[in-house]
This record gives sequence, structure tokens and C-alpha cells, in this order.
Amino acid sequence: MANIPDPSQNIQDIIRANKEYVRNFPPHDRDLPAAPSRGLLIVTCMDARFHPTSALGLALGSTHIVRNAGGSAEEAVRSIIVSQQALQTDEVLLIKHTDCGMYPLGWDIEQEVLRDVKLLKGHPGVSGDITGWIYDVRTGAIRRII
Amino acid sequence: MANIPDPSQNIQDIIRANKEYVRNFPPHDRDLPAAPSRGLLIVTCMDARFHPTSALGLALGSTHIVRNAGGSAEEAVRSIIVSQQALQTDEVLLIKHTDCGMYPLGWDIEQEVLRDVKLLKGHPGVSGDITGWIYDVRTGAIRRII
Repeated sequence: MANIPDPSQNIQDIIRANKEYVRNFPPHDRDLPAAPSRGLLIVTCMDARFHPTSALGLALGSTHIVRNAGGSAEEAVRSIIVSQQALQTDEVLLIKHTDCGMYPLGWDIEQEVLRDVKLLKGHPGVSGDITGWIYDVRTGAIRRII
Repeated sequence: MANIPDPSQNIQDIIRANKEYVRNFPPHDRDLPAAPSRGLLIVTCMDARFHPTSALGLALGSTHIVRNAGGSAEEAVRSIIVSQQALQTDEVLLIKHTDCGMYPLGWDIEQEVLRDVKLLKGHPGVSGDITGWIYDVRTGAIRRII
């Protein structure tokens, strides 16, 4: 443990929360397969105001979730290909959100969703159903664009 | 709506779950700032068996979460830099997990965590506290490596 410095406040809080989580970990979650049970992958932003699992009702083991600054489809392509080819997912939801710092004021976020969905649909390595959405950080609501 | 095909079963389920989520969306979550309240960013895998927000007790608005196939630090660098420079996060947890399809049987996942933490610590664009962890998909427990 010589290389491990004292835990920060964040780490102390996380360790405490995780102990509680482990205590309540349901037995049927112990043997979930790696392949997502819903055949679903979500690409979205790293934004702190969006918890996809809560907001979209995603059970443990059901869905691959890829997140990066802006919910970039281009950066997610490697992960999508791995997910589809190695773990048989066949549906992609691309979800950007309101008030995203990656898109300057005045940019049309709907256009950015359309652009990224088009990129994925045109990518030779990506297949399956691909839809595009916007999450509203002020209401928690999602809205389908395409 | 002409461009929008009939919703899949996944989409019907997600829309139903999201309606419920919106109904219960707490008023104090409507005006969360974009900057994560805990100054924290987590990099982890897209694996369906890990829900970081539940497993680590992360409140809405508290933490940036970056996810990709394997929890690649290299692929996360762009997002980390955006997070640190534009939204003032100053702590990074890199979390890989047991039974990860990105690491062939026999690979030492601890070594992969150490390698990725070293990559981030040596990156000229990345700063702050950086620690490395493993999440156990069978128990829900996290363990610190460095």
C-alpha cells in the first residue's frame, strides 16, 4: 500500500457509498452476462447532470453506455464496433443534451444530433437501429429527434 | 415526424421510464450548474454490469463520467482536458473492472490500471489527483490499486 496516498474526501465518500451498495447487491446481479440483455448501446455526453441509468430506467446488465465530452459519435465508433461485434448489441441511441458546453451558444443542438446520427449510419463498421435524442437538463426529459 | 420510424420495444420502455423520471424530478435538480459539484471525473468502461452513479453514490450534478470500451485512458484524454480546463474538475478516478472483454484472458487487469494511470499522470494536458481502481462485476465492490 506504499504507493497509495491518503484518500481525498471524494474517495472517502465513494468508499462509504460503495460498501453500502455491496451490502445491498442483489444475488441475481452476481452472474449477469457481459452481453447487454437489451442489445442496446447508448452514446451520450459526460455531463454531470445526466444519469442515463436513472433517467431511462436501465437495469444493471442491460445496456452499454459510452460517454465523452459532447457525446461525440465519432469518438464512440471504436466502442460501438466492439459492442456490436463482440457483444451483439444492435440498437444505438445517441443522446445529446441542452446547455452543453461543447456546443457554443447559438448552435443548433438538433442539427448536431442529426449530423452525428448520419455519421453513424454512414459508417461501414456500424450497423443496427440508430436513433437521435436530446436530454433536457432542466426537466430530465428526453425528446426524439430522428 | 415523417423521418421517425416506429419505436422499438427498447424505445417504448425508455420513454415510459423517462416519463416517470420526469414526474419525480426534484425541483432542486432543475438549476444544477454544468460544473460538477465534487470537482470529480470518472473514467470507466461501457460495461453494462457497472452503474457508476449507483455503485459509487454519485449525486446528480456531482461528477463527469467518461465511458468507452475498456475504460481507455488514452481515448478519454480529450474529455478529461475539457472537464479540467472548462469546468474545473481536479480529481480523476480511473476504474477498470473484472471480466472485461477488452482484456484477453490471462491479462493482469491491475497492470492495465497502473499503465493507464501512468499515461494520465505523464500527459502534459492532464493535471489533478489521479487514482486507479478495479470494480468487481460479481460483487459490486471497488478496490483501489494506486
